[in-house]
Amino acid sequence: MKILIVGAGGTLGRAVAAELGARHDIVTAGRTSGDLRVDLRDGASVEAMYREAGPLDAVVCAAGKVPFAPLDELTEAKYLEGLNDKLLGQVRLVRSGVASLGDGGSFTLITGILTEQPILAGACASMVNGAVEGYVRGAAIELPRGIRINAVSPSVLTEAMEAYGPFFRGFEPVSAASAARAFSRSVEGRETGRVYKVW
Amino acid sequence: MKILIVGAGGTLGRAVAAELGARHDIVTAGRTSGDLRVDLRDGASVEAMYREAGPLDAVVCAAGKVPFAPLDELTEAKYLEGLNDKLLGQVRLVRSGVASLGDGGSFTLITGILTEQPILAGACASMVNGAVEGYVRGAAIELPRGIRINAVSPSVLTEAMEAYGPFFRGFEPVSAASAARAFSRSVEGRETGRVYKVW
Repeated sequence: MKILIVGAGGTLGRAVAAELGARHDIVTAGRTSGDLRVDLRDGASVEAMYREAGPLDAVVCAAGKVPFAPLDELTEAKYLEGLNDKLLGQVRLVRSGVASLGDGGSFTLITGILTEQPILAGACASMVNGAVEGYVRGAAIELPRGIRINAVSPSVLTEAMEAYGPFFRGFEPVSAASAARAFSRSVEGRETGRVYKVW
Repeated sequence: MKILIVGAGGTLGRAVAAELGARHDIVTAGRTSGDLRVDLRDGASVEAMYREAGPLDAVVCAAGKVPFAPLDELTEAKYLEGLNDKLLGQVRLVRSGVASLGDGGSFTLITGILTEQPILAGACASMVNGAVEGYVRGAAIELPRGIRINAVSPSVLTEAMEAYGPFFRGFEPVSAASAARAFSRSVEGRETGRVYKVW
């Protein structure tokens, strides 16, 4: 398979590239590194990436940012920032990518444990992750030509604990390699509309 | 208790007003009817409503629209329309309403079965409902003074089957009165961060 990995330069993206790269042709994309450059906040940038990438068998996303702040400091602008990046960025990746995918191809998006297990300062993340998961379930039954869509929802990554540990006290971290296996399951399996929880 | 019901003129809102009005003082609000007029898409309108309403013990929302369209016709503008109305409209209701609520007061928002059980043309609804549910879980652990927040997720209402039946073939409808009891459970119970499924 020819697989596009967006956010391939991050901790998770590198693990996904290692997991899938062992068996498939990988095209990497990212905001500041990779074979192709893309900013998911910009629809034209997403379109340009797909034109360069050519036909694909799978699209994987390990990118998407949301602001973290105490609830009373989460302004409407901050919610919109998170929605525009991690939610609508991934929606753009799907909308623009359908035409590039072969029959039975797949999208695998990224959410996270905060959808169901909240942390302080994480209300925007919980919101955005919940939206991505709802979208995946809704889109799964309408994508054409057997194209599939799933999401991977990891806990905090072991590799990120030095930076994020204070926000995730008591959470069981998972390795990026373990989260990457869930991406493999989505890409190389046949299910659709699933949220693979890695926690 | 003094309870503000937003969207009180709709099928669900009237049932909630009947259920809670038997035991409490109700203030109704809506876009085109009610004691107070409010457009949740407009932050200034929400602020003005709260100024008129005065101190409250609970805020209930039975309002919020999302566009329904086939997946390939759901443009970014349509997603934003749904996010701005049913998601951010309810977020505005919470953000602006905290100061009006007494200690231990509550917000009860509305989502719906499509978060988990998709229908054709419903991807935006599934997205928006998922976002509201994530937000409720995230906000619940940060609201001050024991203020609670829950959501009610009904199936299609029996009273709406004449209009929406073709979209919900095979779904078990629930009466508006049954959905209203879940609002009562949120307002008159003590739980927070819950999504009460009425299906």
